[in-house]
Amino acid sequence: MIKVLINGCHGQMGKVVSEEIKKDSEMELKAGVDKNALDNNSNFKIYNNIHHCNENIDIIIDFSHPSSLLNLLEYGIEKNIPIVIGTTGLSPDDIEKIKEASKIIPIFYSANMSLGINVLISMVKSISPVLEDSFDIEIIEKHHNKKIDAPSGTAYMIANEINKELDNSKKYIYGRDTKTDKRKKDEIGIHAIRGGTIVGEHTVIFAGCDEVIEISHSASSKKIFAQGAIKAAKFLYNKESGLYNMEDLINS
Amino acid sequence: MIKVLINGCHGQMGKVVSEEIKKDSEMELKAGVDKNALDNNSNFKIYNNIHHCNENIDIIIDFSHPSSLLNLLEYGIEKNIPIVIGTTGLSPDDIEKIKEASKIIPIFYSANMSLGINVLISMVKSISPVLEDSFDIEIIEKHHNKKIDAPSGTAYMIANEINKELDNSKKYIYGRDTKTDKRKKDEIGIHAIRGGTIVGEHTVIFAGCDEVIEISHSASSKKIFAQGAIKAAKFLYNKESGLYNMEDLINS
Amino acid sequence: MIKVLINGCHGQMGKVVSEEIKKDSEMELKAGVDKNALDNNSNFKIYNNIHHCNENIDIIIDFSHPSSLLNLLEYGIEKNIPIVIGTTGLSPDDIEKIKEASKIIPIFYSANMSLGINVLISMVKSISPVLEDSFDIEIIEKHHNKKIDAPSGTAYMIANEINKELDNSKKYIYGRDTKTDKRKKDEIGIHAIRGGTIVGEHTVIFAGCDEVIEISHSASSKKIFAQGAIKAAKFLYNKESGLYNMEDLINS
Amino acid sequence: MIKVLINGCHGQMGKVVSEEIKKDSEMELKAGVDKNALDNNSNFKIYNNIHHCNENIDIIIDFSHPSSLLNLLEYGIEKNIPIVIGTTGLSPDDIEKIKEASKIIPIFYSANMSLGINVLISMVKSISPVLEDSFDIEIIEKHHNKKIDAPSGTAYMIANEINKELDNSKKYIYGRDTKTDKRKKDEIGIHAIRGGTIVGEHTVIFAGCDEVIEISHSASSKKIFAQGAIKAAKFLYNKESGLYNMEDLINS
Repeated sequence: MIKVLINGCHGQMGKVVSEEIKKDSEMELKAGVDKNALDNNSNFKIYNNIHHCNENIDIIIDFSHPSSLLNLLEYGIEKNIPIVIGTTGLSPDDIEKIKEASKIIPIFYSANMSLGINVLISMVKSISPVLEDSFDIEIIEKHHNKKIDAPSGTAYMIANEINKELDNSKKYIYGRDTKTDKRKKDEIGIHAIRGGTIVGEHTVIFAGCDEVIEISHSASSKKIFAQGAIKAAKFLYNKESGLYNMEDLINS
Repeated sequence: MIKVLINGCHGQMGKVVSEEIKKDSEMELKAGVDKNALDNNSNFKIYNNIHHCNENIDIIIDFSHPSSLLNLLEYGIEKNIPIVIGTTGLSPDDIEKIKEASKIIPIFYSANMSLGINVLISMVKSISPVLEDSFDIEIIEKHHNKKIDAPSGTAYMIANEINKELDNSKKYIYGRDTKTDKRKKDEIGIHAIRGGTIVGEHTVIFAGCDEVIEISHSASSKKIFAQGAIKAAKFLYNKESGLYNMEDLINS
Repeated sequence: MIKVLINGCHGQMGKVVSEEIKKDSEMELKAGVDKNALDNNSNFKIYNNIHHCNENIDIIIDFSHPSSLLNLLEYGIEKNIPIVIGTTGLSPDDIEKIKEASKIIPIFYSANMSLGINVLISMVKSISPVLEDSFDIEIIEKHHNKKIDAPSGTAYMIANEINKELDNSKKYIYGRDTKTDKRKKDEIGIHAIRGGTIVGEHTVIFAGCDEVIEISHSASSKKIFAQGAIKAAKFLYNKESGLYNMEDLINS
Repeated sequence: MIKVLINGCHGQMGKVVSEEIKKDSEMELKAGVDKNALDNNSNFKIYNNIHHCNENIDIIIDFSHPSSLLNLLEYGIEKNIPIVIGTTGLSPDDIEKIKEASKIIPIFYSANMSLGINVLISMVKSISPVLEDSFDIEIIEKHHNKKIDAPSGTAYMIANEINKELDNSKKYIYGRDTKTDKRKKDEIGIHAIRGGTIVGEHTVIFAGCDEVIEISHSASSKKIFAQGAIKAAKFLYNKESGLYNMEDLINS
């Protein structure tokens, strides 16, 4: 059994990870860390400071806040425990700190922990250079009507990964309203549909001469991020020090 | 056999209508009218002025130019022949003239001759008032990368028909690019995808709480406009004077 | 405030209805009935026999079991309370009893309480006779990999409603595996996709000459049945005796 | 300019290839071969036997009949000309002959010449082993109502390529009609939709826990096979002897 500590165990994602681990036959939830360590109904120990934890831990799964990153990395290095980092909103500086720490311990980091989204990205990356010549690329994403940012971070992540493969030759446009201008070859149109309670859908369209390829991912809950983190933890367990991401997992 | 005259027989749509009529067991192509009446390879007579035609005609199908509308209506009234008008780009003045003429002869007019698009419109009109309360409405249209106007005329036609049913309470937006604003209830997002050689797709999305309804129409050639006009001609044949449209045909 | 009694309040759907009513500003949950009336944590009274309830109730929402139908109808008639019936698995005999009772009190009954699915059905019913001549009809449904019946009851409901409009001229087929036979005009293909945890998707395809119309409904939780029942309750409240269904609500 | 000979130039695909080459700035159509070499309106020479052609040819594109394969390979070897083979219906014996010939001259062979379909196959092959564990795989294909075989050859090609990646652990099923059986893990459902004039659509669905990935290809004409063959010809030109396929082109 892989013994897990969840950093941020009382957060929205921490709770979902905890539920998923309980259902997993290869993993055991040994401890949690959360600033708000009020609830003692859990059948695992919860600490309000990670440094207070002296349990025997095999791996840490982190869905917390950028502000707790330093503490987390220190603890991982001190105890020699691999870390899966699913916290979002990290700065370039934070990423740099993760890179440094990964020279000593194994760390898995992805801006989006969903296996499905990363599989979609790996596919569109591989085919964009093949199709770019004769296909136009457009992205449609759909989310609920409460979402305040548009396009979604994931839509940008997809577009950026495509663009990197194409020598950053593409510009993004976010809507078309014209009577006179046709599409330019260097455009990637990114279209943000908003409505109802849609959890999240992303579709990449490659439209060519008399053929269209569409690759889409549809999520119906946040559980997919927890499942991705758990897959990442199993992948990272027993790995050597280094920085790993979803592409490594997918290609493994 | 219904004897047909095609006004604008050498135009792009005129040719397609002529091909479709040849395959129709209930119709016979008796005459064509076109300014450029050069080609005499046809097995029907072609006139460069409609008033020169003295054939025995049951119905006229018109896919020509707004400039020939007056001549067309005069001829129809003089000879008492019903007219199906598929010419696009007509002005409000032109529509007024059609209304006047339809007091004397039967006229069928639609801004979009495709049966499918009109069926889509009739559906979304009927459900918009039912769903408006708890669903958000968005429209996606896809066309080839040479199209210069966006959103498409048909997308506007769909949006306007929905909006009419909702007391024109909706505003259209054509793209979302924000970090701070969530969707407003009075928005209809209209998203124009452009790529490759896509002939034309229109999708209306009704996104509610934990359920989404999508109604889409996809065209793979301009033949659908010719087929719609032929259905209209059969519908109009033997009708009394009056102005008819696709909604009348669909509800008949 | 409309005062509601939920029959079957501890069942899967009863619980969802109860949650939804709590969020509704026009409704108040006054009482529940359930065989298993163990839980007294609720802030409304729960009876194990509907006849024991003497609360002042405006409307009953029923998601229980066919075996409790008789009790339910007796109670409604005795107290003169309208009833929304969402219980599934009712026999033709049960339907007959509902019809009888609806001569005395207002009853709303639908085999599927989702507004969206019923809106889809009302649309495909209205267009099937228009399109039947030149379009082929196919149905695709998608559900999770634990579902034991295929095609889904809702897919059959859709197909049957279409077929009724077409004088029951269509036969259903459930898969194609041939080297020699092309599609027959009188077929409706019904295709059951099974995979993952998909809650429920139904798509009706009308495929014609160079155009395709698709109407789809996608559900992401069972909440939609509760919401439909609540809409039905508001619709039924203050109606005269009679049997009402979702089509009445949609057309109202 | 790459000088091309089309084998089977009067066939359906031969004509399309010829049209596409005329529009290509890097290629020149020098000669055609067809049993029915009647038409001399062409601006390139047409032979009824390939051995009669003494033109200076850089590459041969073949869309003919299995019966002419031997002649074709002999000619290619004799004149040392690379060959792109798009002819369908080849037997395992034929494939063996192609392999032999490819030891001497460069040959490109694919059972499906569409770039898009092959890109789809390369994607689903790469992700199937990653997702197989926790996702169910289903295939939907849509074709016109005149097609006599179901599922399509391309649907089988996709399923077989997936299955090969999964150690042939999957069985195919072609429809579900049951009241008692849930999906088995080793199933790939292949669903053949038939209707109207649909040219060809193939969708592979990976349905997991709360997420679904769909990869689809939609064709609107046979032109895509000609375009694939032309891409293949440019890829093959100046290559060393050997047998190449679309995967080589995509990965190049």
